[in-house]
Amino acid sequence: METNRYDVIIVGAGIIGLSAAYHIKENNPGTSVLVVERKAAPVQGDTAKSVAAVRDTFTSEVNRLFAGSTIDFYKHVQTDLGFNINLDLISYLWLLDAHQFKTFEGIENGMREHGIRFRVLDRTELAEHIPDLVLDPASEESKIMGLTGVHKAVQGLDCGTVAPELVSKFYEDEYRRMGGEFLLGTEVTSIRVVAKDQLGLPGEPFVWQEKVFGGIETGKGFIAADTVVLASGARAPFLLDRLGIDGLVRPKKRQVFQLRSESLNRLLETKGLNEQNVLPFTILPRGGVYLRPLKRERSFWVAAADDIGRPFSYEEEPAAEENYYTYNVHPILSEYLPCFTNLRPMNSWAGLYDINSLDSTPIIERISNCIIATGMSGSGIMKSDAVGRVVDALYQHRDEAALFGNKKINVSRIGLENRAVGKEEFVI
Amino acid sequence: METNRYDVIIVGAGIIGLSAAYHIKENNPGTSVLVVERKAAPVQGDTAKSVAAVRDTFTSEVNRLFAGSTIDFYKHVQTDLGFNINLDLISYLWLLDAHQFKTFEGIENGMREHGIRFRVLDRTELAEHIPDLVLDPASEESKIMGLTGVHKAVQGLDCGTVAPELVSKFYEDEYRRMGGEFLLGTEVTSIRVVAKDQLGLPGEPFVWQEKVFGGIETGKGFIAADTVVLASGARAPFLLDRLGIDGLVRPKKRQVFQLRSESLNRLLETKGLNEQNVLPFTILPRGGVYLRPLKRERSFWVAAADDIGRPFSYEEEPAAEENYYTYNVHPILSEYLPCFTNLRPMNSWAGLYDINSLDSTPIIERISNCIIATGMSGSGIMKSDAVGRVVDALYQHRDEAALFGNKKINVSRIGLENRAVGKEEFVI
Repeated sequence: METNRYDVIIVGAGIIGLSAAYHIKENNPGTSVLVVERKAAPVQGDTAKSVAAVRDTFTSEVNRLFAGSTIDFYKHVQTDLGFNINLDLISYLWLLDAHQFKTFEGIENGMREHGIRFRVLDRTELAEHIPDLVLDPASEESKIMGLTGVHKAVQGLDCGTVAPELVSKFYEDEYRRMGGEFLLGTEVTSIRVVAKDQLGLPGEPFVWQEKVFGGIETGKGFIAADTVVLASGARAPFLLDRLGIDGLVRPKKRQVFQLRSESLNRLLETKGLNEQNVLPFTILPRGGVYLRPLKRERSFWVAAADDIGRPFSYEEEPAAEENYYTYNVHPILSEYLPCFTNLRPMNSWAGLYDINSLDSTPIIERISNCIIATGMSGSGIMKSDAVGRVVDALYQHRDEAALFGNKKINVSRIGLENRAVGKEEFVI
Repeated sequence: METNRYDVIIVGAGIIGLSAAYHIKENNPGTSVLVVERKAAPVQGDTAKSVAAVRDTFTSEVNRLFAGSTIDFYKHVQTDLGFNINLDLISYLWLLDAHQFKTFEGIENGMREHGIRFRVLDRTELAEHIPDLVLDPASEESKIMGLTGVHKAVQGLDCGTVAPELVSKFYEDEYRRMGGEFLLGTEVTSIRVVAKDQLGLPGEPFVWQEKVFGGIETGKGFIAADTVVLASGARAPFLLDRLGIDGLVRPKKRQVFQLRSESLNRLLETKGLNEQNVLPFTILPRGGVYLRPLKRERSFWVAAADDIGRPFSYEEEPAAEENYYTYNVHPILSEYLPCFTNLRPMNSWAGLYDINSLDSTPIIERISNCIIATGMSGSGIMKSDAVGRVVDALYQHRDEAALFGNKKINVSRIGLENRAVGKEEFVI
């Protein structure tokens, strides 16, 4: 049936699937494209649950190109195209202890040479700009936790925050305008493996046959495709495991807590660190605790990067854990920023990262006529546009992708077979 | 309780766990070591289900060192120590089509320079030595399957087969003799994560605490350990996922079929290719089908390497599938070697590979006080001794491991953080 075959089927209508759909449709106008999404509407999954910060402060070339070109594209969408995506370049602020700053000094020149804009703030400047900040936590609790003093801060100037649902809406609208289709509320249960040259025998494909992907099985039946793009984030391993393909990713829960109080107003309205006169997106020296200000909502989103001890585990509807805030995040937060002391979250939620433990960099690979785009590791939103362009380059069997700003990148570097993404050193 | 704490607990009594136990106990005599195994005896899991072929024909330095030194150690055990492990260096024989031989020519000199002993056989020699071999399959079925002709063969001369249960028995006996302990019939349900500096509060470890591994939870209670070694092969991801550690491995089933018939006797007794006058361990040009001769049992083990389409999936008791032999293995086998036509397997079984899709090379990494040894990818038996020595080097916090024959290797190359194992080119 003609309506049950597409040139391209994209699994997942998060920001990655939508960016891929947009770029494939834009660069291959005659191509029929279907985006299949299990939720009733696009962008209802993990994309919507992100704290959605974007930064270009990376040492590895792939990360710099991916994030830098995506941020430039976001500027273009907001400024040149006039499509509001709430891009706010309020900067990133890493509060570093002496040991962390030493690590930073080892990578500082390399980043500067690559044109990444940042500045270093000393304790006097920090005390002046952020009077709520305790530079040297000294309470009994601080000692028990072994908290270290803030030695310096590094401010990434071309960094900030964005509204991922609006970025996604941009991709979605443009994709629809070009004739792209959606199938919503439909779960993809498997990708069908078929023999390239089918014999019509039961039991195909056999070991001795060359295999390709025939399309997708869904709760509503089979849909054929010439190419399948797998962009379903933390759900991708389910489909990949059934094919015997390892995307090298595992799902891990990350939680976000929203806090609002008059006691936070002065911190929120931090002066002089950006044009917006708001606290930058700020990372504390300990526990991977970070804060995103929401000036309009007069609140903060707070989260922490927990690693060992937080299982790899898939949940349909992951939930935030109040005890996680109370006993893990709040103790650190309230020592460095006592204005948070005893505040309870007014709201909380959780999403799933698709963690690539190898190098925390996206894995974009073509396997026969299937293209996988996984392993965003929590940086999918700041790299979405580059990922979509690399997927399109793979779709077109091109060796090189042109990222926004016409920066070129060899696509095989981002795959598994010839992976060469380099080691990211800015992991403070 | 003193009896419930060990210096080292090793999870898994397969060949890898036993090699690690042996080397740790041998090199750290005062150390208390416990090997915990869910089966009622050692070596009842996937080690026992392997076809147990060993080869040194690799292009990557790590594979050459790991397999080469392990084979040398096996020779030492059998010859110098007089412990029979049924090591039979009957050689490997790759039957290659023209395209595959071209690939081989690209790596031939590199292997020769590294002292790997092999020779190339032409069609005349093959026809003379193996009269049962069809060099140019020409049947209707062959055409449908697209089978290619045998162009040349490559014979790896220092390769062969071994009895993994006997190798394991060697490690086990020596380990016991040195005072090493076992806890059998005991399933490890998790590795316990604890705070390095415990406060005695409920909910520990918290995000702000440094974490270490405290020991193992088992069906029979908790056992404390200063170091935990995870050597449980295809079962390792269960324990690792719960810790939030990705060992980059997935379980995949591999099946073995045993065939016996008078029609196979001439093939079995192939003359002139080795001292034993037996068919070498032989790989067909198509479908990854390979044969291991068993001269004493007057039979062959036959298996095939199926890849895409064979899911990653864990099963407690994986079983061989008769249809897999009938429709996938037999069609290829009987075209190149018609003496197998219409023979049915007299026996079959299946085991699980712990597949590392990144580079098919073992991953041996220390994470705090846990050492993981996973990703054997089907070559654990031919690398067991080197893996055990690298585990011991990590246990001793040494940068370098001395493999058998005093070959040195930097251990961080084998881990994830600074992985540099190189690409294996001999994957025909």
